[in-house]
Amino acid sequence: MAERHRVTFDQLVSAFDRTLRAAGFSAGHSSLMSRIFAESTRDGVHSHGVNRFPVFIESVRNGTVKVDAQPEKLHAFGGFERWDGHRGAGIVNANFAMSRAIALAAEHGTGCVALRNTNHWMRGGTYGLQAATAGCIGICWSNTMALMPPWGGREVKVGNNPLIIAVPRGTNRDEPPLLFDGSMSQFSMGRVQNAARDGELLPADGGYDEQGVPTRDASQIVRTRQLLPMGLWKGSGLAIMLDAIGALLAAGKTTPEITALPRETDMTQVFIAMALSRVAPDEAARHAIVEGLLRDLNATAPFVPDEPVMAPGQRMAERRRRAGTEGIFVDAEIWRQVQAL
Amino acid sequence: MAERHRVTFDQLVSAFDRTLRAAGFSAGHSSLMSRIFAESTRDGVHSHGVNRFPVFIESVRNGTVKVDAQPEKLHAFGGFERWDGHRGAGIVNANFAMSRAIALAAEHGTGCVALRNTNHWMRGGTYGLQAATAGCIGICWSNTMALMPPWGGREVKVGNNPLIIAVPRGTNRDEPPLLFDGSMSQFSMGRVQNAARDGELLPADGGYDEQGVPTRDASQIVRTRQLLPMGLWKGSGLAIMLDAIGALLAAGKTTPEITALPRETDMTQVFIAMALSRVAPDEAARHAIVEGLLRDLNATAPFVPDEPVMAPGQRMAERRRRAGTEGIFVDAEIWRQVQAL
Repeated sequence: MAERHRVTFDQLVSAFDRTLRAAGFSAGHSSLMSRIFAESTRDGVHSHGVNRFPVFIESVRNGTVKVDAQPEKLHAFGGFERWDGHRGAGIVNANFAMSRAIALAAEHGTGCVALRNTNHWMRGGTYGLQAATAGCIGICWSNTMALMPPWGGREVKVGNNPLIIAVPRGTNRDEPPLLFDGSMSQFSMGRVQNAARDGELLPADGGYDEQGVPTRDASQIVRTRQLLPMGLWKGSGLAIMLDAIGALLAAGKTTPEITALPRETDMTQVFIAMALSRVAPDEAARHAIVEGLLRDLNATAPFVPDEPVMAPGQRMAERRRRAGTEGIFVDAEIWRQVQAL
Repeated sequence: MAERHRVTFDQLVSAFDRTLRAAGFSAGHSSLMSRIFAESTRDGVHSHGVNRFPVFIESVRNGTVKVDAQPEKLHAFGGFERWDGHRGAGIVNANFAMSRAIALAAEHGTGCVALRNTNHWMRGGTYGLQAATAGCIGICWSNTMALMPPWGGREVKVGNNPLIIAVPRGTNRDEPPLLFDGSMSQFSMGRVQNAARDGELLPADGGYDEQGVPTRDASQIVRTRQLLPMGLWKGSGLAIMLDAIGALLAAGKTTPEITALPRETDMTQVFIAMALSRVAPDEAARHAIVEGLLRDLNATAPFVPDEPVMAPGQRMAERRRRAGTEGIFVDAEIWRQVQAL
């Protein structure tokens, strides 16, 4: 196990902010991104928090991410807006797009913002949490470069297109929202690479071997670079539909077009918010529904004793609580890298 | 293989219509349902077309489905409406709800209708096709009674909650839309039962055996009645989120509440339409996006030679074409049952 270093939330924010300012971002954008990178780390999503920060800074330095880009509105109709992200930072663009969707939802019930020409949004769950914190159901997704063969195919053509769904916890405002944050592949490439490095089998088939057979052997998947869709044909089909909808709404690039670029950029994203105070104004009824569902789920006899069944987001909520009492632990080597950026 | 009988579309419609009128439905509702049962059969979805028709008539006769129910509007805000289906026929209510979502989309870009206290909508794809035929992206889902254990659990608690996404084919109006129509379980219980009857292994794990281990052995799944979520923890999580959103928007019953009823009824559904002429008015650009995606996918080297890779809905489109030239084939025994109803 790698050496771990304990940091405070504020230490993370300061280290990120200093580097982002030095890379040329405005004070406002640096502050926003620092908070979000730190929150992802606190919530246990290191892969898109502290561990990803050096990669993000590299994408600024190599010109993939434009530090002074401003999103531009291209089209609007009712509760819908289309924006061009002009290759700005993915977090800044996505945060802005969801804030527009939330504002549109207050007026129209549902707000939908399609965003084109943006960059990797890091942890997609961030924007679901943003919507839920504003009292909205949040749904968003992004396309990516191709990482999976479509079902029945031998070539990588389909993105793993993360999909996020967030639902606020009724009047339990201290509880983090329910949060599904998952890509259309069974595992991320990062998870597969970690398993290959550690010589571990994946807990389920995660990609294809060189004969095109699904396998749990991460080292083979690292060679073929062919991830398995979650649910086999179902994840493949869902990923294709999410890509099509995003490109149509944003007049943006599809996965095949992004894959043809020298580096992954110009991604297409969709942000949907539904204002619960408008569309479901009875707060007590909402509370009863969400808490009733959770009670029923959490009472399920578990497969492994003492590992209770949880709804999406409840495990993240536990990690967040633990970070509050025990502190945030990061890989010591990555922390040295971040401080040296 | 069971004996097959060749029927025309009109023969199907007439047989359905006669029985529905005799069961007490109005001429308008009978005509709508007859067409939809026949279309599902023509498109190859026999499980929710002709094969399901006798089950539907039984649900009318035992009082689960109310023949004279009228949907009632409970709440409206902007592009959102909530309706109560008052236990009317699932097809009638769902068709009505999607027609409202389409009308709201024309005004607000996005329309969303939540429906409570309705019955099984038969083939969910019907309402995606309805939206796409009206020039809209269509997204809809339903909850169901519990059919799957939540991930990590030993008890059936989660519905397999079908999710439908439809995207029109640009200016190719003769081509059926792209259509994803899939539940959150890897296989339906009907598919598992057919495999068990035919003594076949499922092509992938489809449920749990008596030790709680995922299995391809359909006969064991028929005994445990525990379906496997598609994508394991992912399908489990998505199903929970779809249930929560539906119940919140519709102020309707959740899967645990439906499961507690003596028969599956009072289901909760959500219908979303996005009017492409409003939110993405450049029709030539839309055409280029969808056709470009399909070209790329269809050109993928296939895993099995001569079995080309297809996007969701393309195989259904092929079956529909074949029905147009070769006729519609139905199970002879079921056809006798339908005619004797």
